[in-house]
Amino acid sequence: MVAKVSVVGAAGYTGSELFRLLVTHRGVNIVGAYGSKSAGKCISEIHPNLLGISDMRIEEPNYDKIGKEADIVFMATPHGLAMKSTPGVLKGGAKVIDLSADYRFDKLEIFEKYYGKHVSPGLKSVYGLPELYREKIKRADLVANPGCYPTAAILSLAPLIKSKLIDLNHIIVDAKSGTSGAGATPSEITHHPLAGANFLAYSATTHRHGPEIDQELSKLAGKEIKASFTPHLLPIIRGILSTAHVFLKKKMKKEEILDIYKKFYRKEPFVRIREVLPQINFVVGSNYCDVGVEIDADNNRAVLVATIDNLIKGAAGQAIQNMNIMLGLDEAEGLRDPGMRP
Amino acid sequence: MVAKVSVVGAAGYTGSELFRLLVTHRGVNIVGAYGSKSAGKCISEIHPNLLGISDMRIEEPNYDKIGKEADIVFMATPHGLAMKSTPGVLKGGAKVIDLSADYRFDKLEIFEKYYGKHVSPGLKSVYGLPELYREKIKRADLVANPGCYPTAAILSLAPLIKSKLIDLNHIIVDAKSGTSGAGATPSEITHHPLAGANFLAYSATTHRHGPEIDQELSKLAGKEIKASFTPHLLPIIRGILSTAHVFLKKKMKKEEILDIYKKFYRKEPFVRIREVLPQINFVVGSNYCDVGVEIDADNNRAVLVATIDNLIKGAAGQAIQNMNIMLGLDEAEGLRDPGMRP
Amino acid sequence: MVAKVSVVGAAGYTGSELFRLLVTHRGVNIVGAYGSKSAGKCISEIHPNLLGISDMRIEEPNYDKIGKEADIVFMATPHGLAMKSTPGVLKGGAKVIDLSADYRFDKLEIFEKYYGKHVSPGLKSVYGLPELYREKIKRADLVANPGCYPTAAILSLAPLIKSKLIDLNHIIVDAKSGTSGAGATPSEITHHPLAGANFLAYSATTHRHGPEIDQELSKLAGKEIKASFTPHLLPIIRGILSTAHVFLKKKMKKEEILDIYKKFYRKEPFVRIREVLPQINFVVGSNYCDVGVEIDADNNRAVLVATIDNLIKGAAGQAIQNMNIMLGLDEAEGLRDPGMRP
Amino acid sequence: MVAKVSVVGAAGYTGSELFRLLVTHRGVNIVGAYGSKSAGKCISEIHPNLLGISDMRIEEPNYDKIGKEADIVFMATPHGLAMKSTPGVLKGGAKVIDLSADYRFDKLEIFEKYYGKHVSPGLKSVYGLPELYREKIKRADLVANPGCYPTAAILSLAPLIKSKLIDLNHIIVDAKSGTSGAGATPSEITHHPLAGANFLAYSATTHRHGPEIDQELSKLAGKEIKASFTPHLLPIIRGILSTAHVFLKKKMKKEEILDIYKKFYRKEPFVRIREVLPQINFVVGSNYCDVGVEIDADNNRAVLVATIDNLIKGAAGQAIQNMNIMLGLDEAEGLRDPGMRP
Repeated sequence: MVAKVSVVGAAGYTGSELFRLLVTHRGVNIVGAYGSKSAGKCISEIHPNLLGISDMRIEEPNYDKIGKEADIVFMATPHGLAMKSTPGVLKGGAKVIDLSADYRFDKLEIFEKYYGKHVSPGLKSVYGLPELYREKIKRADLVANPGCYPTAAILSLAPLIKSKLIDLNHIIVDAKSGTSGAGATPSEITHHPLAGANFLAYSATTHRHGPEIDQELSKLAGKEIKASFTPHLLPIIRGILSTAHVFLKKKMKKEEILDIYKKFYRKEPFVRIREVLPQINFVVGSNYCDVGVEIDADNNRAVLVATIDNLIKGAAGQAIQNMNIMLGLDEAEGLRDPGMRP
Repeated sequence: MVAKVSVVGAAGYTGSELFRLLVTHRGVNIVGAYGSKSAGKCISEIHPNLLGISDMRIEEPNYDKIGKEADIVFMATPHGLAMKSTPGVLKGGAKVIDLSADYRFDKLEIFEKYYGKHVSPGLKSVYGLPELYREKIKRADLVANPGCYPTAAILSLAPLIKSKLIDLNHIIVDAKSGTSGAGATPSEITHHPLAGANFLAYSATTHRHGPEIDQELSKLAGKEIKASFTPHLLPIIRGILSTAHVFLKKKMKKEEILDIYKKFYRKEPFVRIREVLPQINFVVGSNYCDVGVEIDADNNRAVLVATIDNLIKGAAGQAIQNMNIMLGLDEAEGLRDPGMRP
Repeated sequence: MVAKVSVVGAAGYTGSELFRLLVTHRGVNIVGAYGSKSAGKCISEIHPNLLGISDMRIEEPNYDKIGKEADIVFMATPHGLAMKSTPGVLKGGAKVIDLSADYRFDKLEIFEKYYGKHVSPGLKSVYGLPELYREKIKRADLVANPGCYPTAAILSLAPLIKSKLIDLNHIIVDAKSGTSGAGATPSEITHHPLAGANFLAYSATTHRHGPEIDQELSKLAGKEIKASFTPHLLPIIRGILSTAHVFLKKKMKKEEILDIYKKFYRKEPFVRIREVLPQINFVVGSNYCDVGVEIDADNNRAVLVATIDNLIKGAAGQAIQNMNIMLGLDEAEGLRDPGMRP
Repeated sequence: MVAKVSVVGAAGYTGSELFRLLVTHRGVNIVGAYGSKSAGKCISEIHPNLLGISDMRIEEPNYDKIGKEADIVFMATPHGLAMKSTPGVLKGGAKVIDLSADYRFDKLEIFEKYYGKHVSPGLKSVYGLPELYREKIKRADLVANPGCYPTAAILSLAPLIKSKLIDLNHIIVDAKSGTSGAGATPSEITHHPLAGANFLAYSATTHRHGPEIDQELSKLAGKEIKASFTPHLLPIIRGILSTAHVFLKKKMKKEEILDIYKKFYRKEPFVRIREVLPQINFVVGSNYCDVGVEIDADNNRAVLVATIDNLIKGAAGQAIQNMNIMLGLDEAEGLRDPGMRP
């Protein structure tokens, strides 16, 4: 009745967040936690918030065993690892939700341009954005969980692009993320004395989430488009705010655009359309993606702001939402926390 | 079957946190949200994280009605308000959990010295620290939910004081809190340009949580004692870390002290004794109080560090823990989130 | 030999910063500090960092006296005040550097659309951006110190606009500022529990710095243009980062653009062109505006990032730079601090 | 006329701060910047705030050369390095200001217990706290610049200990520091996702600044004493706040204690005694140590709070103050910035 799930990459931040959300999930049991560097340690040594909640020991991954013991396996590993182990896990009978980029791209050449050689390119996967691909996710064996920036950017733009109301040559996505997006490995850019009161643009025209956004926006547009994507690093831990600047083909009012969005997302449990622009602290701790819009009539510009918690809707929460869909559970199971504010 | 609860003071930060935790609680329904300044507004206008989760409207409080409609009423109001309304609410038949200081003190003169005139001093209340008063809380009609600093300080000291192992004349509690403890009203001390990269001691020898700590430590000691309490303001939003410096009557090892603590709290669902000193991010988002100790053999000093989330174990979470006890529910219902880290 | 200066609005954050920089300036003496709400208080009661450095008392402003006693008067007052008092101050013989918006606009109707009725519209002023108007500033009696966002945005775009290399219809300025830009008055948006781990867009299509940017860019372009300006609030105290997205008319390399910028600013003491995109902590505490660029060849887009300390190059420092020019002093006098990092 | 100075360890945070303060100092010229890992790089590649200010190249240290070329050499190197190179530098004729712990201890066994084997234990050094040792510093060839915590703790306690008014067996120093004290090397404890909204005690009973504090307090007391020192890590970049809890032998008023402090420090350019407890943002960016006191009459306790900028009065600023004394310059030269607030 209760499904069995395993987490590979349990020592990282998305692994931590998967554990946090799964331990109170009523439809699943965690049967395995895996990792290489952390193998042999108790999960609560790595993630002290789990003390008294889980004393599971992290094991060196054995993908044969993993594929057989679990119904769903979360791959919360760095890019390049899932592509090696996923074929074996699938063979064992488990379904896979991969939180890395390995199976997100339709075109192999795009993946390889940005991430390097792929070793299992033939596998069929579904891009795990439930708002666009729910029906396919239901039947998928391998779900490629979207990147954090793409989740916010695509959800904020999908209705307007689909409705063919904007100039597709001038789509600017100026996005900002908290530092947890950089992962658990210390580096200079996330060293507190430098990051704590700083703000910066990084990979300003070359970030790997750019082609992922382009892939999905192109499918929505029905033609190849390239958004102008630039990410920035915020001195906060959690949260992404994506500001999309687009140019309307004709004069439109805020209310008209809001109506298009409300209609597009009317059945969605985790997208909220707001009358005011969403802030990061409207969603931190929750699985929501909040979207709002303002109009700049002088330039016929619409400013679309979306906010998510990058570790939840941008990673672990969305993975669990996908899992719920794959298991036929209530899509919101385990994801009902309204988020902390303040 | 499912109990009915109301929140008075729904617009404040403890009101917000009560709502956040109660909307996913499986043993209760929220039947009323009350507040004066915010009356007429939707709860999600005040707390945007609740959009799509609750569209309850905040009403001007009518205490007759409130006492009759609910099984449990949370008073999340500023000090001085519950003392006026609680008698009426109790008369209506509801039980009351007061998150203010109004009913925390055994001695009227102490209350009035620190908080001013009391208008309903006769009412019988139980100090709502489950770790010390669980049995009384079960039978109480009026529970006085402890202050945030006292929760951390008392839990970190109770076992050692009870066991009579320390010098009672030199107990120093040097405590540090995030800014959410200051409440929802903007002021200079919490103005971001001043608070954002600052740290300061405030009410260094006069804070009103001092006598509350003294009351409970004195009962544990079996004699009147006065701890040396000094609070500080941290440039973070949530969390309290309390550092207690005490002097041992005889040489003791860390392990001996940890054993005393583990024994004292062995059945407690929300106190965790740690081998390493707890940090604030071990508990934020959870109802845990984590406690650790280090020994300074040169001075025969024990350093006891406790951390809590001031809005959860220090306020709303503890109130719900009390509610669960009063309703005969699993004490952890609605409080199982392991907390977010990072 | 040493000039006499006064500060009106000494209790605010730009007043504070003017004091901080002027007390160590070797070319001037502060002869008066003025303010209405703070009149009667010692400057170091309001700004505790000045204890032991200045014991000047803040006085109720008397503009006749102020105009006669000083050579230069800084008006660090809220918008709408300088326009009332400046004519009197000028009559007394002093020159005025106004840090508010009152004299920044060439067209009265633009000012009045965004700021309300002007009461001294006839006065001749110079827009105090030394990089564009140094010669006029030398001879000016009234300098309108630029807004903080416009300083960063204009400096980052001026060379490219002047050189007619970009599409003037799609200039996006997505800017981000620390909270000190909101001033010294506490409000909900800067209340630490909400601001401390947040990020948000505000006045996303209506901010009053938009028309100020447009005025200066239009003059550089030789035709009326409207940039698409959207500001955001960062959870840090000091610093602005402005990200401008522009579209090049022809393919260009980063080096070509950097050359244009280096040439344009070759004699400037406070503009640094960088090979890498500047970060906020490259400039905090200094009077520098740092500018860098990256090219998105796919979209023929240039991303221009500029960073300043909003209270220095964005306010008080630039005002002192203007003062130095007006007094014939070394332009960098009092402004040589390299800025603190970390 | 103008002295020549060199900085060894130019790539670290104290090296960075020395550069920042020395480039505008009117009494010295920097003639050399040294470092091993960073050798060959330009100083502004490592410290981007110095772009356009210094293009000095960092060299591999050659201590013969260094000792001959400079009048004063700053050793801003990790503990254990200065002890190897200082004898050679002194032989060359330069005076040395060592910012590490290598020459701070009077007793070799204490140093070696906490820091390991000493290789040049015979060298005569002066503890570089000008408020206690100014006359000796004037004549010293080797000054051991104090630790950051000891600077704040000693200055906050010296007058009361010297005046024999407190119980020497119960001196608690509960200190808190920003993350820049941890230096420039990234680690888990300073990784922003963990450090950014956290607070923790570390080395709670074993920190190496404890014996340094004890050494100086013992000399002031005229007998061996051991303070109870516990440091904590603040989620800010700069600043130390030290809270000392001491017990008075007799009842005393705040004013009496303030008088003792004002008298003790009456001639000091960088100690300010305040009527209110100092906050960290009263001193950040300045060389001041601010001290205040509150009395807890119930326990006869005095709470002494001191704040410093750990990189200035706690490191580079104090080193320059020592240099000014050694060179016979105005002690405040190069150190007059009032500090930034906000």
